Amino acid sequence: MDGGDDAHQDKWARAKITEGEWAGWSYLHGDDPFEDHAGPFYFRDDANGRVCAFRAEPRHMNGGNFMHGGCLMTFADFSLFVCAREALREHHAVTATFNSEFIGAVQPGSLVEARAEIVKAGRSMIFMRGMITSGDAPVMTFSAVLKKTGPRN
Amino acid sequence: MDGGDDAHQDKWARAKITEGEWAGWSYLHGDDPFEDHAGPFYFRDDANGRVCAFRAEPRHMNGGNFMHGGCLMTFADFSLFVCAREALREHHAVTATFNSEFIGAVQPGSLVEARAEIVKAGRSMIFMRGMITSGDAPVMTFSAVLKKTGPRN
Amino acid sequence: MDGGDDAHQDKWARAKITEGEWAGWSYLHGDDPFEDHAGPFYFRDDANGRVCAFRAEPRHMNGGNFMHGGCLMTFADFSLFVCAREALREHHAVTATFNSEFIGAVQPGSLVEARAEIVKAGRSMIFMRGMITSGDAPVMTFSAVLKKTGPRN
Amino acid sequence: MDGGDDAHQDKWARAKITEGEWAGWSYLHGDDPFEDHAGPFYFRDDANGRVCAFRAEPRHMNGGNFMHGGCLMTFADFSLFVCAREALREHHAVTATFNSEFIGAVQPGSLVEARAEIVKAGRSMIFMRGMITSGDAPVMTFSAVLKKTGPRN
Repeated sequence: MDGGDDAHQDKWARAKITEGEWAGWSYLHGDDPFEDHAGPFYFRDDANGRVCAFRAEPRHMNGGNFMHGGCLMTFADFSLFVCAREALREHHAVTATFNSEFIGAVQPGSLVEARAEIVKAGRSMIFMRGMITSGDAPVMTFSAVLKKTGPRN
Repeated sequence: MDGGDDAHQDKWARAKITEGEWAGWSYLHGDDPFEDHAGPFYFRDDANGRVCAFRAEPRHMNGGNFMHGGCLMTFADFSLFVCAREALREHHAVTATFNSEFIGAVQPGSLVEARAEIVKAGRSMIFMRGMITSGDAPVMTFSAVLKKTGPRN
Repeated sequence: MDGGDDAHQDKWARAKITEGEWAGWSYLHGDDPFEDHAGPFYFRDDANGRVCAFRAEPRHMNGGNFMHGGCLMTFADFSLFVCAREALREHHAVTATFNSEFIGAVQPGSLVEARAEIVKAGRSMIFMRGMITSGDAPVMTFSAVLKKTGPRN
Repeated sequence: MDGGDDAHQDKWARAKITEGEWAGWSYLHGDDPFEDHAGPFYFRDDANGRVCAFRAEPRHMNGGNFMHGGCLMTFADFSLFVCAREALREHHAVTATFNSEFIGAVQPGSLVEARAEIVKAGRSMIFMRGMITSGDAPVMTFSAVLKKTGPRN
């Protein structure tokens, strides 16, 4: 969710990881306590647009040892704001509605990815939808409306 | 989400907390790594049915210092399975669809509560809806379909 | 959906039916072509609030001879605006999001009722949810966000 | 919605229109009373898959003289079953959940199109999502779960 940092732009530039499994990805450390805690979640731009990702760890699982729906929804919410970044240069925003369908299970160790697209960026509302996948399998579809709140300072 | 424990019943009986802020509430420790991590979340029965609750801590917040939507959705998903417990004595289940509307913000320190009701428990699907509140203010409405999977052993 | 009539109030007063099956109910004839065509749908206030109703006819059915989901969703959308009327005295509004779960089938000849409640009427958005029932059986749950547009003249 | 006709296949073959505005499109006349009444709605296959369409008439409008949300949702529900046809050769199905976001208004006279894709066809549930457009503008996004019911005879 939305940070409200006046150095938002600089943060993104400094966020790129240079080594390890996530070299070439970015991570907005310290911006969002719940996402730091649930994730961390990463993002980068590729030929198909912006993609978000993380690797499923035992702490992301539910009692059945597959990924908790709350973890997937948190990751999807993260992806909304990462993918809407350019449309939110001047405004803060909050998630107003969020819908999801749980299609496939995620096992520990899997790489999980999300892509979200803006269907329409209106004056006060941004309509988005997206999908979480793992490998080539769909995991969750989602749609959401972001509501613009105050201007960024 | 759903535990799959053959001693499910006993766990609930042993789960009651006897002292501190949550005396009289129950907590299913160790059942679900992501919920342990995101919560812990508590539940008890009162005159109006079953209620789930937790207290908002800084780690539940987003970058704007109000509660992350992913935290609220994780808590709502928890409440679905806690409130559907009696309908799931013989089957495991997963969340198939989850919809939510974000209505009010939650500040650190607030008590957050959720109630979920079964609208219909069908042969294979359980239709539910609920609301998260804080004080008397609505925070999030949600609806969901749980899909029964295999039988409990 | 929203009429945009400057004599909105008067219309409601004149809309009451005085004889036949729907005596005591109101019907906003001519306000909305698609609702006239799909319905007509009726409403009245009772001890539990405002209720909307209509009787299932063969033309409301799908190919399986139970009520078409589109008919139920049209009726639910009608109920949103009827039940939000007092919150929309000064503004027009449109449905921004609509979610539904189809829980039970409706046979021809059945009386179908809907009740919708405002969870929160905000400055620009109205959060609502409701249920369609027939007899005592749940037929459809729904939630929606209405977005205020321009002022009524 | 789902017909339950043992000559289902033949009907589709016979449904092609040979003259007028809709030459080359198909129309399942008489299969579904509410869709006949709300539509008629047409479909055909093109290079991008299956597309559904109809032209906005005054009777599809709401009181504000733009297309009624119930009409759009009825059309979307139609598109789900038309686009899932190959996955439903052996089973009947019903809409279990339907979510929608209303993104743009449709004026009388406009051509309205819908495309729906199967994200996953499971053993008992079919997960779908789609979009209604008019010209190049998005009108409504939607997602749905169809639940298989009995076998076709």
